Amino acid sequence: MSLLIKNGRIITATDDYIADIFIEGEIVTAIGKNLPVKATQEIDASGMLVMPGGIDPHVHLDMPFMGTFSSDTHETGTRAALHGGTTTVIDFVLQKQGHSLREALNEWNGRAEGTAVGDYGFHMAVTDFNDHTKKEIKEMVDEGITSFKTFMAYKGSLMINDSQMTALMQEVKQQGGMVTVHATNGDMIDYLISQHKSEGKLSPRYHYLSQPEVTEAEASGRFADIADYTGCTAYIVHLTCEGALNAVRNATKRNQHIFVETCIQYLLLDDSYYEKDFESAKWVMSPPLRKKKDQDTLWAGINQGLVNIVATDHCPFMWKQKLMGAEDFSKIPNGHPAIENRMELLYSEGVHKKKISLNKYVEITSANPAKIFGMFPRKGTIATGSDADIVIFDPEKKHVLSAATHHMNVDYSAYEGWEINGKVKTVLLRGKIAVDNGECLVPKGYGKFIKRKTVN
Amino acid sequence: MSLLIKNGRIITATDDYIADIFIEGEIVTAIGKNLPVKATQEIDASGMLVMPGGIDPHVHLDMPFMGTFSSDTHETGTRAALHGGTTTVIDFVLQKQGHSLREALNEWNGRAEGTAVGDYGFHMAVTDFNDHTKKEIKEMVDEGITSFKTFMAYKGSLMINDSQMTALMQEVKQQGGMVTVHATNGDMIDYLISQHKSEGKLSPRYHYLSQPEVTEAEASGRFADIADYTGCTAYIVHLTCEGALNAVRNATKRNQHIFVETCIQYLLLDDSYYEKDFESAKWVMSPPLRKKKDQDTLWAGINQGLVNIVATDHCPFMWKQKLMGAEDFSKIPNGHPAIENRMELLYSEGVHKKKISLNKYVEITSANPAKIFGMFPRKGTIATGSDADIVIFDPEKKHVLSAATHHMNVDYSAYEGWEINGKVKTVLLRGKIAVDNGECLVPKGYGKFIKRKTVN
Amino acid sequence: MSLLIKNGRIITATDDYIADIFIEGEIVTAIGKNLPVKATQEIDASGMLVMPGGIDPHVHLDMPFMGTFSSDTHETGTRAALHGGTTTVIDFVLQKQGHSLREALNEWNGRAEGTAVGDYGFHMAVTDFNDHTKKEIKEMVDEGITSFKTFMAYKGSLMINDSQMTALMQEVKQQGGMVTVHATNGDMIDYLISQHKSEGKLSPRYHYLSQPEVTEAEASGRFADIADYTGCTAYIVHLTCEGALNAVRNATKRNQHIFVETCIQYLLLDDSYYEKDFESAKWVMSPPLRKKKDQDTLWAGINQGLVNIVATDHCPFMWKQKLMGAEDFSKIPNGHPAIENRMELLYSEGVHKKKISLNKYVEITSANPAKIFGMFPRKGTIATGSDADIVIFDPEKKHVLSAATHHMNVDYSAYEGWEINGKVKTVLLRGKIAVDNGECLVPKGYGKFIKRKTVN
Amino acid sequence: MSLLIKNGRIITATDDYIADIFIEGEIVTAIGKNLPVKATQEIDASGMLVMPGGIDPHVHLDMPFMGTFSSDTHETGTRAALHGGTTTVIDFVLQKQGHSLREALNEWNGRAEGTAVGDYGFHMAVTDFNDHTKKEIKEMVDEGITSFKTFMAYKGSLMINDSQMTALMQEVKQQGGMVTVHATNGDMIDYLISQHKSEGKLSPRYHYLSQPEVTEAEASGRFADIADYTGCTAYIVHLTCEGALNAVRNATKRNQHIFVETCIQYLLLDDSYYEKDFESAKWVMSPPLRKKKDQDTLWAGINQGLVNIVATDHCPFMWKQKLMGAEDFSKIPNGHPAIENRMELLYSEGVHKKKISLNKYVEITSANPAKIFGMFPRKGTIATGSDADIVIFDPEKKHVLSAATHHMNVDYSAYEGWEINGKVKTVLLRGKIAVDNGECLVPKGYGKFIKRKTVN
Repeated sequence: MSLLIKNGRIITATDDYIADIFIEGEIVTAIGKNLPVKATQEIDASGMLVMPGGIDPHVHLDMPFMGTFSSDTHETGTRAALHGGTTTVIDFVLQKQGHSLREALNEWNGRAEGTAVGDYGFHMAVTDFNDHTKKEIKEMVDEGITSFKTFMAYKGSLMINDSQMTALMQEVKQQGGMVTVHATNGDMIDYLISQHKSEGKLSPRYHYLSQPEVTEAEASGRFADIADYTGCTAYIVHLTCEGALNAVRNATKRNQHIFVETCIQYLLLDDSYYEKDFESAKWVMSPPLRKKKDQDTLWAGINQGLVNIVATDHCPFMWKQKLMGAEDFSKIPNGHPAIENRMELLYSEGVHKKKISLNKYVEITSANPAKIFGMFPRKGTIATGSDADIVIFDPEKKHVLSAATHHMNVDYSAYEGWEINGKVKTVLLRGKIAVDNGECLVPKGYGKFIKRKTVN
Repeated sequence: MSLLIKNGRIITATDDYIADIFIEGEIVTAIGKNLPVKATQEIDASGMLVMPGGIDPHVHLDMPFMGTFSSDTHETGTRAALHGGTTTVIDFVLQKQGHSLREALNEWNGRAEGTAVGDYGFHMAVTDFNDHTKKEIKEMVDEGITSFKTFMAYKGSLMINDSQMTALMQEVKQQGGMVTVHATNGDMIDYLISQHKSEGKLSPRYHYLSQPEVTEAEASGRFADIADYTGCTAYIVHLTCEGALNAVRNATKRNQHIFVETCIQYLLLDDSYYEKDFESAKWVMSPPLRKKKDQDTLWAGINQGLVNIVATDHCPFMWKQKLMGAEDFSKIPNGHPAIENRMELLYSEGVHKKKISLNKYVEITSANPAKIFGMFPRKGTIATGSDADIVIFDPEKKHVLSAATHHMNVDYSAYEGWEINGKVKTVLLRGKIAVDNGECLVPKGYGKFIKRKTVN
Repeated sequence: MSLLIKNGRIITATDDYIADIFIEGEIVTAIGKNLPVKATQEIDASGMLVMPGGIDPHVHLDMPFMGTFSSDTHETGTRAALHGGTTTVIDFVLQKQGHSLREALNEWNGRAEGTAVGDYGFHMAVTDFNDHTKKEIKEMVDEGITSFKTFMAYKGSLMINDSQMTALMQEVKQQGGMVTVHATNGDMIDYLISQHKSEGKLSPRYHYLSQPEVTEAEASGRFADIADYTGCTAYIVHLTCEGALNAVRNATKRNQHIFVETCIQYLLLDDSYYEKDFESAKWVMSPPLRKKKDQDTLWAGINQGLVNIVATDHCPFMWKQKLMGAEDFSKIPNGHPAIENRMELLYSEGVHKKKISLNKYVEITSANPAKIFGMFPRKGTIATGSDADIVIFDPEKKHVLSAATHHMNVDYSAYEGWEINGKVKTVLLRGKIAVDNGECLVPKGYGKFIKRKTVN
Repeated sequence: MSLLIKNGRIITATDDYIADIFIEGEIVTAIGKNLPVKATQEIDASGMLVMPGGIDPHVHLDMPFMGTFSSDTHETGTRAALHGGTTTVIDFVLQKQGHSLREALNEWNGRAEGTAVGDYGFHMAVTDFNDHTKKEIKEMVDEGITSFKTFMAYKGSLMINDSQMTALMQEVKQQGGMVTVHATNGDMIDYLISQHKSEGKLSPRYHYLSQPEVTEAEASGRFADIADYTGCTAYIVHLTCEGALNAVRNATKRNQHIFVETCIQYLLLDDSYYEKDFESAKWVMSPPLRKKKDQDTLWAGINQGLVNIVATDHCPFMWKQKLMGAEDFSKIPNGHPAIENRMELLYSEGVHKKKISLNKYVEITSANPAKIFGMFPRKGTIATGSDADIVIFDPEKKHVLSAATHHMNVDYSAYEGWEINGKVKTVLLRGKIAVDNGECLVPKGYGKFIKRKTVN
């Protein structure tokens, strides 16, 4: 079984050239002009961009949260991802406080195995770090789960304190892993939520006002401080604002390097979305959308090399789930759907509008996620020996985003009506045509769990 | 004429895989496993690293300076570069104050054309910006000289003032070019030199003490300020110290992006080299070597994505030329030889000692110089369609640097006796084996002038 | 009853002149040359400095802590203070978690009333902020207790979390008070202590190593952030290090003003004191002594106007109390004796060594504490209408500090053998000669509680 | 001859109390309640504020500039100052390039001696630092001129370069003086002016646009850097903006202390004044007025202790002089009249509106100028032995500023129609009633030259 993609303009994080790609089985085996090969199947990619499959390292599929589950399963979520050009996702396993990491992993495996359509890995969210958990860190690394997520918010369910953070970092460093963080001052937010509620301020706008920029800026600095003290590799997820990025910039002065992820929504949407009465619930997520100046700092941060990844924090809920918070913003399930839209939105708003280069586009959507999270060179590039995870992208095709046409299991679009320049045409996952012209051609269960390597 | 490099471990700024490279004429045409091709010639690269030829964007060949000429001509310099794995250099054309850019270009062309062994481009050093020069900016861009070097030091011969800097930036931005800078407070240095001399402090150590860190930190900040005001693409050459890099870091907070180059010597050598009596003259260069803490900030800056390029500022002088300053440090010709040593030193001290990754190594020695200076994708990578400028590097081979064995036209080595892990084995330039096992196989005049594209 | 101090060199935070001071009852009523007055008593202060009585806004007298009580009562502590030129102190009332502020105040009143020899005020340490406590804030302000101390450390006994901090600040601001803080990351310290203990690292040096600079720098920034968000007047007690002062400096950039106190020991002693085996227990305090570079930043901060007060955090323990931690540094009662030494040490090491001016000396030991804490103009200056709290100081007298001669109720001196330039000769408290040539002339109970005004 | 001021509320930089002040000859000799003295003359100051005479350390009287002279002579200027509560000014002597400091001093003495109504000192503006000038520094210090002004702008007439700056600082430090600076990037401004003119942009608004914030921020940082290197006491005059104050804040992190002066106009007026066609010429000054955010940073800086003085840079020109630039903004004489208005404006906008305290008001208008510039304790306070330079100020009196009523020799007011809360009632200069209810009672020539002390 072999496949030849002909005449595409191949883009990696570094390269940009026109050639043919020859794929045997799941793997790219040759790239060149006029390759003297015979393939079972050929695709003409003339005029198309040919890029590594997107990797979204921040998604929440079928996740129990706030008394409900995020509405995309590993099946629907990874399938939608494929439609949008994302071939691999990293999902979060959540330890339950009082329970082991292993139990959580078993639970997540139970939901994902045989279900996922696209490839996936796991982060392990450590919500209860104790002597037992400490022993499990190495176990998880051995399972190929090398990144450990922490929450500085959601006290009582997900949050760990700075004692645990310090201890966790020391152990994770020892085992060659990385600590990632939802950096925000949870205690301060808890107070602001309760204060707003006590004053009868219950609309979605108060979700936003309960998480002011300072809560994220403060916690980002605090996390960087602990990481610097312990020497642990550190990564901030969904960084949204100037204050937080400045904390990272300040940390560079002591020769520290912190990886930074932002999400597509923080680049494109702003806090005006919270002026829409209850419809604003569609964009109730944590951290909330920020201001125009924060978008500017994020775009600049990408080009400065300080923001390394654009993910989604995809965590969709049906409108009726959102309605759980109709009378109380603090009961609105947090999250928004984007797993399918990230690649096209970022191309259209970033590359097409000349905010970032094509190489940078691949770097922050695919190569960096693969490298930072230990999946490279299997994923994240188009090169001999790599998985043939490939997006054939039509840069000229215009279309419009809509819930009516998207594949995510959610009944609204956060980007309804957005006009997009550029469209995913064909997607290959491990050598198979997974999506072609809007049709998914691989079955439930095609997705594989990707074991990830240690960092450093 | 075709060539097949077999089984090498191919490294680009992004990739890392084992494959064969097929070269037809000057160009790479295919890469893959077991390519079904027939080549005129084959090289077995098993166990070798196969990397894009190094690009050194900061060299001074046959340059009139301080009453003499740098001792490497375009022939000897580019040949030595090839021996060290650098296939392309960018040399500086110096406008003479009171004369045109065109005159300077003609002079440099006269020295380089038909002489260079390796490929080369030109930066244009604008030392006298006036209405006539302003008109020549576009001309130079049209010639493929898209970067304009400025000196904030050497008043009376090379320095332009901040009026000229502002005006130049506005024009260069208009023409799609970039302004680069030797950032240092020339007036302050002039005073310190004269003060030291008036006090009879004449040894090479006073060269160092006449250029304290503050002179560079101040000017780097000032240059960044003017660049921010004008919006011009900006690049700092040979940045050496914490103070200067902090100026760049501070600039990131206003969403500015400044490209930063350091040189191999600032990563590896420190100011203890100025405690050697007149022998210290070997390391008399501007800026001078700095402290251990500055080396730390530069290595960190590379991994933070803030330092983009490692060059050499190669500017060799024979020992008898250095002796011109035997009685007066200010008469020692500034500069040191490194064009041949950069790639091996950085591999040995950076990659081998695990300070940087292999991909980062290629990024800062080849891909970034090519991209930032408009030679990509022709140069800076190994990919279909690119020039076959390739270094086959033996990562296990140990050797010792010495003037006795180097190919630069200078009678001392700044790194005499350094033990190196890893050695250039074979170098291809545009498909031709230029160096093999220490022998240069291409003739004087083989090097081509590389027209460079505009930035942005 | 009147008193005339003749010919002294009068120093206030602003002034410096020679004149006579006329005191009627407790109050200064006139100052001038050759005042045409008749006094009951005259003191010749020729050649002497005549300064406002010192105010030490950070002392812990008779305080229950770590299973014991600090060894100076309000009697012995304020008497020793008088001997050292400090006429007023502000002591800390500690709310017990689960109990009210009122209960704590009653307890402290019980210990201080009729006991204190010198004047005193109270800070209220809020260790359990809840709806009941919230109501008591106004009550305390009405009692003249307008500053509310918080601990970001000592979880389970004194620490409040950031929810409580935010809520407290909002209420305190409302009531015209100020929030002060022991800024340190208590959770991180708790972990480091337990880690050290689990590794058998039990000597006093590990007290120091359990509270690295980052713990204080982080928390100072966090506190500043919350204060900025709430708009509450904010004050950091016993700031010790560069990292923490830089957090304050950064806060100035958003137009915030934070009051900063350091203590005499952080200006004079460094971490070499922790290399003395168990004798180091004498200097076990929190935060611990820091490095030479931190002393430099604190002296500079004073002259930059960013460090406003030099206090003591006086919290003495007898050697046998310190021995409670002989086998475990975490059981050593924290604190050191300095209430008697501050004024002379700071004169000798600060004024005499020309690090600070005489006016600055009075500003940071008396005028600023009086102003910042709402006791001005009654305290903190020498002016018509102010309390006649006056120190007559012999700038030429040399002496040596020693436990053998000090008046604090503690059997060692943290400054044993220090040679001091300048000595307190006579001290007046509210018009009475309280100390003269080393003899205390006012009885137990002479000290009055000072009600303090709101800030802003 | 003696005078008794009864029952006033006396305010100094530290104190605030009600008492009587007894003055004998030129000097305050006693302060107190019910002083048992007999005075030749009595003033009832009940309900009044009694404050030290204002000191304006930045005025330009009878100054040759841009082909004309500032319109206030030492007579009219100091008389107007007295009317406004300013008893002492420091005027700038300008060395002419190619000439000596002595010549300049002679010229200024010729204009000021026997002319000034109020007291005055001189700064020496060093515009041509060379070996001869170097020798004169000590001479000037001996004359009581201990501060040396530098210009980083006005090339060809006033500007010195960084060589000269460094050398000057080293010499001034040696002699115990201070270097002050007009910090701005003159070269950059020269370019922007010429560029605007070449484009036919000739209105006053282009004066403003030729001096963007960056020009001042950059130069403030550069000046701080050189001062840090040389160790010279440093002072920035008329600092106007956030960028420049941030340069000072950054300098505090290396333990540097820089004195900062702003002027009343930068606190009160903003760049909307440049939207008025040619009337904007009234506010053409250098630096120009800035933005609202800059006003905020200046007010904050005062309370942070980082902005030490509020002066005027008084430099008035008649409207017909301003008209010299009717066709070309670069020909408008720079400067605006404020010497008479500073004290009342700052009281009304600062104290009355609760932006600063009364003590801070005296500190930044009188005590700090006296201390920083070596006139203390003779000037800058109300205390025994000090000159009886006293302002009796009615805090309740409202009035309106107008050219129709002011005493400056200029035919417009920069604050026409401003409603002021608080008014100068009576002014004493060295014991004499100089102004009373709007009438000047001392003759031309009453003002004395004040020799100033060295700093440090």
